[in-house]
Parts: sequence; C-alpha cells; structure tokens
Amino acid sequence: MSFEAATHATAIQLCHSVLDRCGTSGSGHPTSAMGIAHVATVLLYESMRWDPASGANHDADALVISGRHASHITDAVESDVGASVRHVTHIAPGTPGRGLAIATGLALDARERKSPRRVFCIIGDGETREGAVWEACDLAVERSLTNVVPIIACNQSGQSGATGPGQSAAALTKKFGAFGWSCVTIDGHDPAQIRQALADAAQSAAKGTCTAILARTTKGWGSSSLQAGSWHGRAPTGDRLRQAKSELDAMRVRYTSALASAGHFRRQAPGQVRAAAAGTAASATSAMSGTATDSAGTASATIANFAQAMRAADMGTVLATGKLSTRRAYGLALRTLAQSDRRIWSLDTDTRSATGADAFANDRALSDRFVECRAGEQSMVGAAIGLASAGAIPFCSTYARFVSTAHGDIESAARAGANVKVIGSHAGIAGPATGTPETALVDAAALRPLTTLCRHGAPAFHILQPADAWAAYGLAVAMARHDGPCMMRTSDVEGEFLYGDSTSFELGKFEVLTEGRDLLIVSAGAMIHECNRALDLLDLSGIDATIVDLYSIPFDRDALLDLANSNGGNILVVEDGAGGLLASAIAEACTDSGDAFTIGAMHVQSVGVPGAAASGTPLTHDDRLRAAGLHHSQIAARAAALLGVRA
Amino acid sequence: MSFEAATHATAIQLCHSVLDRCGTSGSGHPTSAMGIAHVATVLLYESMRWDPASGANHDADALVISGRHASHITDAVESDVGASVRHVTHIAPGTPGRGLAIATGLALDARERKSPRRVFCIIGDGETREGAVWEACDLAVERSLTNVVPIIACNQSGQSGATGPGQSAAALTKKFGAFGWSCVTIDGHDPAQIRQALADAAQSAAKGTCTAILARTTKGWGSSSLQAGSWHGRAPTGDRLRQAKSELDAMRVRYTSALASAGHFRRQAPGQVRAAAAGTAASATSAMSGTATDSAGTASATIANFAQAMRAADMGTVLATGKLSTRRAYGLALRTLAQSDRRIWSLDTDTRSATGADAFANDRALSDRFVECRAGEQSMVGAAIGLASAGAIPFCSTYARFVSTAHGDIESAARAGANVKVIGSHAGIAGPATGTPETALVDAAALRPLTTLCRHGAPAFHILQPADAWAAYGLAVAMARHDGPCMMRTSDVEGEFLYGDSTSFELGKFEVLTEGRDLLIVSAGAMIHECNRALDLLDLSGIDATIVDLYSIPFDRDALLDLANSNGGNILVVEDGAGGLLASAIAEACTDSGDAFTIGAMHVQSVGVPGAAASGTPLTHDDRLRAAGLHHSQIAARAAALLGVRA
Repeated sequence: MSFEAATHATAIQLCHSVLDRCGTSGSGHPTSAMGIAHVATVLLYESMRWDPASGANHDADALVISGRHASHITDAVESDVGASVRHVTHIAPGTPGRGLAIATGLALDARERKSPRRVFCIIGDGETREGAVWEACDLAVERSLTNVVPIIACNQSGQSGATGPGQSAAALTKKFGAFGWSCVTIDGHDPAQIRQALADAAQSAAKGTCTAILARTTKGWGSSSLQAGSWHGRAPTGDRLRQAKSELDAMRVRYTSALASAGHFRRQAPGQVRAAAAGTAASATSAMSGTATDSAGTASATIANFAQAMRAADMGTVLATGKLSTRRAYGLALRTLAQSDRRIWSLDTDTRSATGADAFANDRALSDRFVECRAGEQSMVGAAIGLASAGAIPFCSTYARFVSTAHGDIESAARAGANVKVIGSHAGIAGPATGTPETALVDAAALRPLTTLCRHGAPAFHILQPADAWAAYGLAVAMARHDGPCMMRTSDVEGEFLYGDSTSFELGKFEVLTEGRDLLIVSAGAMIHECNRALDLLDLSGIDATIVDLYSIPFDRDALLDLANSNGGNILVVEDGAGGLLASAIAEACTDSGDAFTIGAMHVQSVGVPGAAASGTPLTHDDRLRAAGLHHSQIAARAAALLGVRA
Repeated sequence: MSFEAATHATAIQLCHSVLDRCGTSGSGHPTSAMGIAHVATVLLYESMRWDPASGANHDADALVISGRHASHITDAVESDVGASVRHVTHIAPGTPGRGLAIATGLALDARERKSPRRVFCIIGDGETREGAVWEACDLAVERSLTNVVPIIACNQSGQSGATGPGQSAAALTKKFGAFGWSCVTIDGHDPAQIRQALADAAQSAAKGTCTAILARTTKGWGSSSLQAGSWHGRAPTGDRLRQAKSELDAMRVRYTSALASAGHFRRQAPGQVRAAAAGTAASATSAMSGTATDSAGTASATIANFAQAMRAADMGTVLATGKLSTRRAYGLALRTLAQSDRRIWSLDTDTRSATGADAFANDRALSDRFVECRAGEQSMVGAAIGLASAGAIPFCSTYARFVSTAHGDIESAARAGANVKVIGSHAGIAGPATGTPETALVDAAALRPLTTLCRHGAPAFHILQPADAWAAYGLAVAMARHDGPCMMRTSDVEGEFLYGDSTSFELGKFEVLTEGRDLLIVSAGAMIHECNRALDLLDLSGIDATIVDLYSIPFDRDALLDLANSNGGNILVVEDGAGGLLASAIAEACTDSGDAFTIGAMHVQSVGVPGAAASGTPLTHDDRLRAAGLHHSQIAARAAALLGVRA
C-alpha cells in the first residue's frame, strides 16, 4: 500500500476501534476521536520518532492531546500497535485548553537538554477560547520553542453548537500569526498534506520559526450519519453503531483500493541528544541523567544547610543579623538545590523580585532553567506539569493572591500526581501592606481539599507554611525531595530565626516550640511569632501553653492529639488567613479521633484587612494584626477565655 | 487655556497628588499611575459623558482600571474634582488582566438596555500576558460590543524588568487585530491624540467595529528621576519626592505656557437611553428599571413554584414521573425567574445543554440576556462581575470540574461582594460517568474558605447543594433574591422528588428529612438519596437515625447542634467530594461550640473515582458509589461502627 492508503486504512481501523469501545460502554466522545484519526495516524505511525517496542525515552517525540474528548484515539492506537503509547502521549487533565502549556513544559526540558525531541500537541478549535492557550502561545514564542508543534483540529463544532467565528481556521491563522507563529492550513484528513505540514514545521523550526498547523477536520469523519451536531459526546449503539461502522467500511473500500500500492509507513527511531553545539557533550550528558525520571537526586541529599548556603552566597552578614524573610530563604534554597541538581527549575510570573526567585534567575549558571512566564499563571503551572512529566522538578512562584488564578491547573497537577511545586509569597496578613496586591487570605485554604485526597495511598497534596528562614530553606529542600505536588506560603516579613541546624523539616511533621500543660496553641507561618509574643501575657494569666508550629498539612494527627491531650484537651488555633486551613484540618483530626477537645479558632474574619488608616497612613504590622483580631494580646485574651481564666 | 494645556496642567496636578499620597504612606505604585495621567485626564475631564455632581447613573460612561497599580489616579481625580468618581470608575480586583472581562459585562448590560453608555478600560501592557484578556477580547468581538474601548498603556515595563516582545505596542496591534479589533496607536501623553483616538473609536463603533487604543506611555511620566525601572512599586519620599515634584513643575511650565490659551474641557452629560430602534420604548424603560441597583426585584417575590413552572413549560408529563435532575430544575428556575425579572442573565461556557442553561438560551424572549462565553470560564465570571456592578443578576453555569478554572475570579467576586451566581453541574461522583470531564471533587470545597469570611457582617459567600428538583428550583430562586455571590452544585442524575410546595429553601437553613434519636446523618445534594436508602439497613441494626439535608453552607449552627445533641451527640457526615466541605464546616461548628460530639466523616478518599471497570464496561451508579466507599450499605456499616453496634 501507498503511504496514503496505509494512512487511510489505519485511520479507519482506529475509528472502528473507537466506535467499538465507546459502543460497548455506551459512553464517550467517539466523533471527536474520529476527527483526529488521520492526524494521529500520520503522527504516531509515520512522522513522530519513537519506538513502540521500547519504554520511556526522553528523546522520543511526544504527543500531547489537549482535548480529552479525542483521547479515545490513543486506546485505539494501543490496540493496533500492541504496545503502550503512554510513554509518548499525554492526555491533558482538567479544563480544556491545557495541552499547549504542558507541551511547552516538555519542550523547555528538551531544549535545555539539547534533546532532538519534538512535542506535538493536538488542540480542539473550541479550546482556543481558553486564555490558557494564548498564555502558552506567548511563552513558546518568547522562548523560541520551535520544538513544539500545535495542531489545531478545526472541526468548527463545539458541545452546544458551532464554535465561534473567532475559532475558525482562518481566524486562528490570524491569531497564531499575531502571536508570532507561522501557520500552515491543511485538510486534516489528507495523509500527504498532514505529512507535508509536519515536514514544513520541522524545516521552519530549523530556521527558528515556531509553526502551528491548522487542520480542517470533520467530527465523526468516515461516518456521515454521525456528523450531525447531536452526536457530540454520544456513543452510537445497536443499529446506529452498525450503520456508522458500515459507513467506515465503505470509506475503506474507497480510499484503500484506489491508491497506489507502493510504500508504507516509515517511522523513525528516536533521535539522539546532539553533541552539544552550544554546550559541551559532558554538560549534555549530565543534563540527560539529571532529567531521567529514575534519577535518584542524590545531589539534594547532601545539600548545604541554611547557614552554609547563606555563607556560600556571600550573605554571612545578613545571617549574623538573625533575620531573613522566608521568601528570600526560599530563593536561596532553590538556587542552592539547583546548583547540584539539574532537575530543579524555577518558573515565575513577573514577580521574581518579590517571590525570591530572582536568586535563581540572576545566577548565570542556572538561568537556562529559569522561565519568566510573565503574567501567565496558568501557563506557568501548565508548563510545570509538562516539565515534571519529563522528570524535572519545577518550582512555580507568584504572589499568594495570584495562586488561585491557576487553581484548576494545580488541582490537575495534584490529581495527576505531577511533581509540581507552587510557592505563594506575601501570604496572609502578617506582611506589610506595601506594594503588594490584595491580601492573600484563601490561597492555601482553597487548596486544602486536595490534601484530603490520596493517590496511591499517599496524600495527593501538601501545604507548607514555614515560620522562619531556616524552616523555609528546609521545607524547600523537603519539597524537592518529595515526589509529588505541594504548595509553600512565604512572607516578606524579615522575621527572626526560630530554628537552627538541629531541626530537620519533613512533610507531614510539626515542631513543638514550647512545652506546657494547659493549652495547645497551634499556628504556622508568620503567625508563630505572634503566638510566641503572647507567651508572656499567658504567663501572667497563669496559663502554661504549648506552642506547636504545624508547618505541614497533612500532619501526624496522632502525635498532635497526644499533645492536645497532655494539655487538658484544650486547643487554640491561630492562622492568618480565612478559615478552612489549619482550623479545619485540626477540627477534622479531633472529630475523627472520637475524643473530646475544647477548641478555639482564630482566623481572619473579614474579606478585607485594611492596609491603611482612613488618613492614608499605612497601618503598622501591629495595627494590621489588631485589625484582623490576631494581635498577640488578642491571642492571649482568647486563650484565657477558652480556659475560663481571667486575662 | 487650550485643551492641550488644560490636559497637561490637570495631568501634572494629578501626578503631584499621586506622589503626595504615596509619599505620605511611603507605599504604592505612583509611577504606574503617572503613566496614565493624561489618558485618565482626557477620559474623565473631556471625553467621558458623566456628571461629577450627580450620583450613579447607568447611562453615564464608565471607566474600568484593570491594572490596580495605576488606581491611585482615581483618588487624585477625586481630590481634584471634589466629588466621588466611584460611580463611574471600577478598579478590577485580584489578579492582573481582569478588567476587560468586567468591562464586557458592563457593556453587555448597556447594550441590552440600549443605553448610550460606553465603557473604557485601561489595561497595562504586561497584563496582556494573562489569558483572561484574550478570552474577553473574543467575547467582546463576538457580541459586537463596540461600546467597550480598551486602552492599553504600553510602557513596556513590568515588575521585574521590560515586558516581553509579545507585549509591545506593535505586537499588541497585531494581536488585537487578529482577534477582530481595529487598533489606533497613539502617544499616550499627547492630549490631542488621546482625544482623537477616543473620537475615532466612537466613529468605528457607529460602523460596528470594536476599537482598541494602544497608548505608548512612560511610567513615571513627568519625572525623569523616577523613570528608571527600579521605581516600580516604590514611592519616593524626602529628597527623592521633592526632586520628582520639581521635575513635574518644570513640565508644567513647559507645557502650559507655550500653548494657546483658548478653549478648555468640554465634558458632556450622560446620554439618554435611545428611544429603542430595535425594541419598543416601553421595553427599554422596563429594562432600565430592571437594571437599576435600587430595584426591589419584586417580580421574583411572586414567582411560580416548581410544579407551576413545570406545567407552564409544558413539562407536566415529566413532573408526573416524580423525577427530574437538579440541573434541569435549575434551568427551569432560571428561565422562570428571567421571564419576570429583566435583571436575570445566563452565562455559560459551551456547556449549556449539560448545565441546563439551554432552557434560558432557547427562550427567544430571553436570549438577548444569554451570553455564550464558549470555553472562557474566566471571561464568564469577569463579565458577570461587570454585569452585577450594573445591577444585573448574572448566573454563570459550567461543569463543576471547570469552576476552579475561574477560582481567582470567584474569589474576587466574593471579596468585592459582587452579586455573581455560579452553577457547577455534574458535581460529585453521584452522576453517571458518561460524557463528562473528570469527576468534580473539590469544586465547592475549594470555595468553602470564602464562606468563613464576612463582608459587612454577612457571609461573603454561600455554597448550595440541592438534593432534588424542588430544592434546586427553590435555591435558584433564593440565590436570585440574595444580594451576594453564591455557588450551587447540580447533578445530572434524574433523582426522585423529595420535596414539595410546603418546603421553602433559604440560604443558611437546612431540612430535617427523618427524625430519630440515635444518630444525626448530615449530607447534601445527590448523596441525600443514598442516605435515605441506608435507612432500612440502619433499622435492621436498631439505629434510629435523623437525616438532615444540609443544603446550605454556612448554615444555622445552633439548630444543627441541637439536633446532634438530641441524637446522643453522634454525627455522621456523608459527602460526595473531597474533604473540606460539609465535614469541615460541621467539625468547625462542633469544635467552636465547646461541646463534645462523636463524628464520623465519609467523603471521597481518592483523586480518581473509576468511571469504568478494567473491561471498559462503565460502572453503574451503584458501582461508582461502592468504589468511592459511599454506597448506602457502606453508610449503614459506618453508622453502626460509629455507634458500636453490630451492622
């Protein structure tokens, strides 16, 4: 068979397979999958360089399918080739429009390793209404990621009807063009046009131009009876299934008998890492091993401690002051980690001077692995998912208030087990009110539900709140060592050191700062300092308090409740955000235990914590705490009320 | 003074005022505000039709400032004109890039009312990296919202350094052009060019073309000493402040003495609602009263009940079956509400056939107030914030799994008190696994922290989970009557009716379905049915259970805990999502009360609930419940274990 006939025959076979599978379950989106059957066939059987017989290979080309609806096609390919295609295909999770950002992450990794990997991404035209697609378009062009090739399946059919006029192939050509892409428009069911477009994209890439392919496709290709709009998201069964399959058979006769019989698929094996032109072969090799998923990451096992890292960074004088913000300690940790572990990446949203990521970005030896995503929070987390799937350890930093803009993407990372780390700086009310966006009150609380879910028996997500620079440094190292998604909240307060080298920070643990017997005060992050300040007042009231720095959620519940029980069952939770984070996690632990506890919870009660007095004069740190009801005098008063003693 | 001189003089005065204010507090972003001083002057003193002396007027032109950094300028204008500008200016909350979506919402309202209002939106060039901007661009063009005029302040300076090449005025001209906008590029500090561009935009609008203005601006205009990048987000004080102000004074001399002295500002009063060309004058008038913020909304006070609405919609036969999904009941309620209340709008993300919003969209009398946002969740919620600020009551529907994509926007709505309603369909695991995206597990739980915050003494957010069609209908009506943001989760399960006309649904309340004395079972949404199914098994175990449908969060804590106490203090919480929603809210209520309770919580434990068996056969509803540990037999077993009796 010719290439054309072979492609048609295979595509038709895949369509049959999709229909059979969906018909069995009576569910799925077979028509969406049929619409990309030819594109998937040319990619996976001809143009992509990969080897079905071998396992994961970080230099094999990759395919990201952004529109989940069409993902049945990969199951069909697996049946046909008799091997898993999971190691070269990625189905983007969650909301539509996420695939291209993930593809940019894979491409960033390949580029940094000087790998010949190319990353193809099939995107539905309707998905391009998602802003996340355009964030990724900007990022790819700005980083000259010519190794990403988006293929838009332009079937002009959405779920509820036709896609918008702004989502036509012509409109999308203009849009991609304006975002800096070269565009090729093809018939997405013409094998030769698909192959040629992919070859053209490779040629453009060699010249430094990013190329997008606009493939006009037909939803339900091959079966005219399924091409009416009402078949979106529906699987034909019974007679309708038989009719669709017989229409496909007619297509087979039409396309595979009339075409010449010479030739066949010529899939190539994965390329090799190029003997580095820009770098050295040695660096390319170390990059390779650094990004392999099975790398043990032993480098981070022997990392310098906080004080050593400070001195190594010529910050010995600052160290001697005994004060450093957790955001700066994070930046130092990230840089120190990255210096001995090439898997560590830093991504940021034009906030690096605020988040501490500038310590990484400004280090010339690391700057290749710094990704300035500008104001694109969603593309940042999406790219991080892609990087993580290539074995990298990406840290995404932004203002804590902006974390929720990528909430859906972080949820996707957690549910997929993607090894993505998120840092939210300027978290809570503790910091000064200057130069920052709105106070971040629900940033971490909104992510706590993810910590209640498990993946393979382990928590799906961790939330970390360091109280000082030692903790921020230690937790950043712990995050890097942990294979799974987490978030850390940092602050810009130049807080005093509470810890030293003798404390090790681990996910799931907590630290007892003061041991008493009357009341267990649980807090985290910058509020720990305020709890410590309350100790003298508590003493005056005759309250002998225990203070726990509950820096991790989830945490060791039994150990915490033991402490509560040895404090008369009295617990006071203090947190500098909305409810739903520490207080909820502790309340659930208490109620699950079946034991009785007396619990008081102090959190921010109002949507807005004032930054300035009516006069315009900014509130001091103390004023802000008082306005939020979280001043140490208020903590002491609440503790006394809880225990029924006079303050 | 000439217009030019007057503009310069005023802009310089505003810059002085910005510097003085920021200098006093030592904080803020004065240079960003100075960069838009001329644009703001021409808008607010010359081209916008509004009257500082009068209050809110829904036909006055509006100005949305997307980049919060520049918002100091409105305070300066207020000082200068001696009147509030709050009724014509909107500062977009939250993450950058939100302003244009809000502007489209205001413009949708004006368009529907045939109001001459125009909506200007000042956007920072760096903000255009946010995908939300491009979602809004698509929406505005698709709806031909020529009454929106974005003005991009192109200062090419972000927080961390220069903006990206894709954010230059030239690149943005291409992008806006590709999205269907006509573009005008001007010197953003030249008064005549600004005025002319605004006039050109009005002319284009008359011809049906949307126009964007690319204004090249200088951050820190007027003070060369502040134009270095390091002044982003910093306020000069002392000598630096004095220097900046003296540089401004030099600009005043330069610009106001050299120009001709004739003429001045010619601000026009707000226009009037056009005697409707397309509709009737009467409908325009009713639209006006319908959208006025002080409208009492009495129409919804006399709305038909669910059964009446079903019959009116020719769904009497369905009603007689005693079954309807909550998503369809929602659609019916929305349509019924909208028929007598012009403030009700429906927005959706190409999911209307799934969410139930098609009942609204397909009603010709309502379709002007239906906004198909396609796959743009963020632009949907942003437009809803704009609509709400114009007095409309927008309902935003999408798959529950997609709600988190607009999480940051919903947070902004809650914190600003915007009257935005969010509907997440196919929530939880109860529904069939067909044709839907990933199971929505954390959709509402992620929003619960917002319910712990207050705004003017009332909860900042409500989460609603109707158990049947009567409840969904009643809660949709309650949402419309409540002035504040809420979210409702709906299901596609064709569930049996539990309620009738005798039950009224109110935010903050719950319903007791079965009264017992041994155990309080608390659940909500579709899981209520499973709890009811557990009753027979509980009877066999000798457990006399109370079942509460806790359809609202927050809820009446005292009433619920009274019930718990009359059930031996035993509580079993059953919910079909991750932890952090019902169980957390109840655990917090219990712990806050100081009383001891025995609580068991059942929720989904794993990131993924299987939709199909390994064979590909889809799991039945029962199978899915069992896989999630939420089958009625498992509920009964857990109840027995909690009470220590044999199941």
